[in-house]
Amino acid sequence: MATSTRFAASLRRFQHYPRVTPCTSRFRPAVQVRWTGSTAATSEPHQPDTEGGVKGKTAPAKTIKFTSEAYPDIQRNSKFAKLTPDHVKHFQGLLGSESALIDGLSNDAAEDIEPFNSDWMRKYRGHTKLVLKPKSTEEVSEILKYCNNNLLAVVPQGGNTGLVGGSVPVFDEIVINLQKMNNIRSFDEVSGILVADAGVILEVADNFLAEKNHIFPLDLGAKGSCQIGGNVATNAGGLRLLRYGSLHGNVLGIEAVLPDGTIVDDLSKLRKNNTGYDIKQLFIGGEGTIGIITAISILCPQRSRAMNVAYFGLESYEKVQDTFREAKNQLSEILSAFELMDGRSQKLITKATGKKMPLEGEHPFYCLIETSGSNSEHDSEKLETFLEHVMETGIVSDGVLAENETQIRDLWSCREGIPECLGHWGGVYKYDLSLPIEDMYQLVNDTRARIEEAGLIGNDDSHPVLDVVGYGHMGDANLHLNVPVRRYNKEVEKLLEPFVFEWIQKKNGSISAEHGLGIAKKPFIGYSRSDTMIRLMKQIKDLYDPNGIMNPYKYI
Amino acid sequence: MATSTRFAASLRRFQHYPRVTPCTSRFRPAVQVRWTGSTAATSEPHQPDTEGGVKGKTAPAKTIKFTSEAYPDIQRNSKFAKLTPDHVKHFQGLLGSESALIDGLSNDAAEDIEPFNSDWMRKYRGHTKLVLKPKSTEEVSEILKYCNNNLLAVVPQGGNTGLVGGSVPVFDEIVINLQKMNNIRSFDEVSGILVADAGVILEVADNFLAEKNHIFPLDLGAKGSCQIGGNVATNAGGLRLLRYGSLHGNVLGIEAVLPDGTIVDDLSKLRKNNTGYDIKQLFIGGEGTIGIITAISILCPQRSRAMNVAYFGLESYEKVQDTFREAKNQLSEILSAFELMDGRSQKLITKATGKKMPLEGEHPFYCLIETSGSNSEHDSEKLETFLEHVMETGIVSDGVLAENETQIRDLWSCREGIPECLGHWGGVYKYDLSLPIEDMYQLVNDTRARIEEAGLIGNDDSHPVLDVVGYGHMGDANLHLNVPVRRYNKEVEKLLEPFVFEWIQKKNGSISAEHGLGIAKKPFIGYSRSDTMIRLMKQIKDLYDPNGIMNPYKYI
Repeated sequence: MATSTRFAASLRRFQHYPRVTPCTSRFRPAVQVRWTGSTAATSEPHQPDTEGGVKGKTAPAKTIKFTSEAYPDIQRNSKFAKLTPDHVKHFQGLLGSESALIDGLSNDAAEDIEPFNSDWMRKYRGHTKLVLKPKSTEEVSEILKYCNNNLLAVVPQGGNTGLVGGSVPVFDEIVINLQKMNNIRSFDEVSGILVADAGVILEVADNFLAEKNHIFPLDLGAKGSCQIGGNVATNAGGLRLLRYGSLHGNVLGIEAVLPDGTIVDDLSKLRKNNTGYDIKQLFIGGEGTIGIITAISILCPQRSRAMNVAYFGLESYEKVQDTFREAKNQLSEILSAFELMDGRSQKLITKATGKKMPLEGEHPFYCLIETSGSNSEHDSEKLETFLEHVMETGIVSDGVLAENETQIRDLWSCREGIPECLGHWGGVYKYDLSLPIEDMYQLVNDTRARIEEAGLIGNDDSHPVLDVVGYGHMGDANLHLNVPVRRYNKEVEKLLEPFVFEWIQKKNGSISAEHGLGIAKKPFIGYSRSDTMIRLMKQIKDLYDPNGIMNPYKYI
Repeated sequence: MATSTRFAASLRRFQHYPRVTPCTSRFRPAVQVRWTGSTAATSEPHQPDTEGGVKGKTAPAKTIKFTSEAYPDIQRNSKFAKLTPDHVKHFQGLLGSESALIDGLSNDAAEDIEPFNSDWMRKYRGHTKLVLKPKSTEEVSEILKYCNNNLLAVVPQGGNTGLVGGSVPVFDEIVINLQKMNNIRSFDEVSGILVADAGVILEVADNFLAEKNHIFPLDLGAKGSCQIGGNVATNAGGLRLLRYGSLHGNVLGIEAVLPDGTIVDDLSKLRKNNTGYDIKQLFIGGEGTIGIITAISILCPQRSRAMNVAYFGLESYEKVQDTFREAKNQLSEILSAFELMDGRSQKLITKATGKKMPLEGEHPFYCLIETSGSNSEHDSEKLETFLEHVMETGIVSDGVLAENETQIRDLWSCREGIPECLGHWGGVYKYDLSLPIEDMYQLVNDTRARIEEAGLIGNDDSHPVLDVVGYGHMGDANLHLNVPVRRYNKEVEKLLEPFVFEWIQKKNGSISAEHGLGIAKKPFIGYSRSDTMIRLMKQIKDLYDPNGIMNPYKYI
C-alpha cells in the first residue's frame, strides 16, 4: 500500500499513539449527589453521560429523598384510586404471587420492591406498594384494562436506567416492570430484522446479533441493564446514531398495549409498508405515557470488521466545524463517531485524575473521530489521507491515531471520562441539548462569560464554580453543557436558569436532545416546543389515555 | 493494486461488460391503457415503476374516464358544500385571481385546470372547478380554515406523480396545489440539513445539493416533476432507501397546516430532539388526509464520488438470498442497491425490444448490485473481492461489471426497463408489495401455477396471459408482481384477486410497499392491517380532520 509512505512523509506532527494507562483505572472520585430543580449533580458510573446508567452501584435506595418531597408542587391526583387488598388479590390471581410483588399490604413479599421505586442516579424515589411483572402481552393487556377501569395509575418500567426520572413512580403508581418478557422472537439473517420482547436487555440483544454478524443499531453506556423496549419508549440516541440514524427510522414495528387493554399489533417485519398512518412512531419517544411497548421489530445492520480512532487538537470552533465537514466528506460512509471536547474539559480530566492526555500541548478544542467499516486496510487508508489533509491545511493542529484496542479505549476515555471527572470537586450543573451546529459552542462561551462576570468562577475555594465546559456528540449537534462546582449555589443557579433555556429557545434548539422529558424536563418543554405543538401533544395523550393513568406527573 | 490480478486469475466467467446499445433508445412500445378495479395497465414512461411518473407526456386529459364513473360505488358526500361564486370571490380576494384558477364559473380562467383534475397515468380524473395555488404557509392556513368552516372538501396536490390516485379529486374537491411554494429556505453545509418549501421539485433540491456536495436522501423516476412535500406526504421509497433509510428517519421537521388552519410549526433543524410525541411522523405517509405539509427539514448525506454496477445470473432464489447476504456482509457500507429480476422478466425485455442482454446464457434469476462510496479504488477492490467470492463458491453463475457510465446506465435499464416492456403486448396487472424476504418470490411461483393450471398462459394469441414475472428492490424486500397480458380478462382477474392479497396477508406482508393507498388501495388495507390498527388510524383522522374535508374518499 502506498498510504503508509505518504502518511509518514507528511504527517510530522501526527504520531501513532503512545501507550497511556487507561483512564478507567484512575477514575474513582467521590462525588456529592444532589438534585435541585432541573439542574443536577450525579455520581455517574464511568460511561458516557448521554446514555443512561447502570443500576445497583449505589447505597440502599431508602436513603434517597422522595420525589414527592423534592417536588412539593406536584400533588397526587386524587382521582386515582388507592391500592386495596382486593386489587392486590386480583393481580396475584392474574399473574401469580411471584409476579406481583407487594410491600406493606402483606408480609410474604419474596423480593424487596424498593429498587423499583428509585432510580439508579438516586435522584427520584416513589412510594409504590406494588410491582407487577407480566410474562406476556396478554397479561399486560389484562393489567392495564383493570387499572384503567379502576383508575389505578401505573408506571411502565424497563431497565430503569433513564436520566430524567421517567421510569419510577412519584406517588403510589403501580410499577409494571417488563423484565420477564425477555424472549428474542425471531431474527432474519437475510434482511437483518430482529423481533424481540420489550424486556430483552440491550446487551443480550447485541450479543445475540454478534453471533449472527449483526449489531443492534443503538449502543449506550447502560447496555448491560437497559431494555430495548425502554430504549424505544425513550427514543434513545447513543453512540451509533451518527452512522445508523434514529430509532424512528430503524424500528419497523411495535407491539404495544393501550391503557384500555387494546393490543396495538403493528409488529411489522417489513422495511416498507405504506398502508396508513405510522402510529407506532407515537410510542417511539412516548416515554410510556400512552401505552406500554411489549415487543419491537428492528432493522439491524451488519457488524463492522474494522475500527479506527483518532484524537485531535484544534485552535477554534470554526476549525472543529471544518474538520467535521472534511470528515463527512472524506470518511463519508465509514465515519461512525465525531465527538467534541473543549480544552477545559480535557484539562479537568488531568486535574481530577492526573491522567496524561494523548497530546503534549494545549488546545482550545479536541475532537475524537471513529471509523468503522468492512475493510481495515481501506479504512486506514481513508483515515490517513484525511489526517494528512487536515494536518497539511492546518485545520487540525495536532493529533494521534490509536494503534490497538487498548489505545482505542484510552482515547475514548478522554471523551467518556468527562462526566465523572467533572463531579470530582463537588457537583455539576448539567444540560443535554441540541443546537444548530454553528451556534452550538457559543452557548458555552456565553454561559461562562455570565458566571465570570458575576465573579463566581475561580481557582480557589472562595469561588463556587470551577469552570464551564462543553463536550458532546458533534456529529449529532448534541452538546453537553456542564458547570462543575465546588458546592451548589443559588446565585449560580439564578445565572444559569432560565438563561440557558432562553438561549436554546432563541436558537430553536432542544432542551433535551436524547434524554427525554420524564419529570426533570417536563416544566421546560415550552422552551423547545410551541404552544401549538404542546396542545397537539396533549390531544394525543388524551386520545390514547383519557383517564391519564399512564406514567402521570411527567412528560407533558 | 493486487486486486486486479486476483480478479483476473479467478473470475474466468466474470467479464467486464461489452458495450451494448442502451435499452432506452429501443424502448418505445405502444401500450394499451386501462383501469379495472385495483389492477392496472399503464403506459409508464421509461423509469422504475416504483417511483411515480412524469407529467404531460400523454394525450389531452379530457379523454380520461372520470373516477366517479370508474368507481360507481363511491358517492359524493352530500355534507360537503358545492362551490359558489361567493366562495370563488373569497379565494380570489385572498390569493389574487392568478392563483385561483376557475373553470365553468367564469370565463377569464388564465390557465386550463384540466391537468390538475387528472393524473399522469390517465387512470383518475376528477371534476374540480377550482385550483388554488397559495404562495405562503399563511395562505394555506387561510384557505383551509375557510374550507373547513364552509365544509368545502380539498385535495392537496404536489407534482401529481403518484400511482394510486391520491393527488387528484374524485368529485368537485378544491385542488390546493403547492407549486408556488418553491423556495429553498436554508442549507447548513456542516450538518447537511436542508429546509425547503413543500413545492420544491425533487430534482431542483437535488441539483442544489449537488453544488454543495450533498444529495437528497431520496431518488425516484419522477424526480423532475414530483415535489418534496408530496414525497414526504406519501413516504416515497425509491432508489436510495437501502442505503439512506426511510423518510421517517431522515425528515427532521415539518411545517404543516391542519384543516382548522392551525400551523404545525415543527420545522426542527435538529438531529436529536426528545421533547414530546413525534407528531410530524403522522404527516409522513399521511397522504394529505390530516393536513397539508408546507415545508420540510431533512438530513442530506454527502454525495458519493464512486459508483459501480454489476449484473449477475443465478440458479435459484436461495442463491439470490445468499448473494444478498454476502453483499451486505462484504460490501457493507458501500452497498447502495440490490435489485432482483427474474429470468422471465429479462426474457420479455428481449422479446419486446430485441435488446441484447448483458449475459449470454439463460438463468432463472438475475440481480443488479450498485455500490457507491467515497473512494473508487477501495470500492472496486471490495466489489471485485466480493465477485470473486460469489463466483468461486458458485453462489453466482455468471456476471458482468460495468466499466463506464454508459454501461452503468445500460445495466440499470435491464431493471428499469421492465415495467415498460411488460406493457408491450396489451396491458399488465401490477402489484407493489412487501413480504418477508424468504417468502417473497414464492408468490410469483404460486400465482403463475394458478394461472397456468387454468390454461390461461401461453405463447399464442388464444391465451390472455403471456407470463407472470417478479422483480423489485430485493434490498428492501419490495416485490413487483406483474402479469403481462394480451388483453384484460375477467377470468384472470378472478384468479388474481383476492388470491394475491390473501397470500400477502397470510405472510404478514404489505399490499402497498411504497406507493401508498390513495383511492386504488383503499379497499384492500384490511389485508395488511388489523381491525385494531384501522380503528386507531380512523381515530387519528377524526382527531385532526373531524369534518373529513381533507382528501376525501381515499386512504382509510
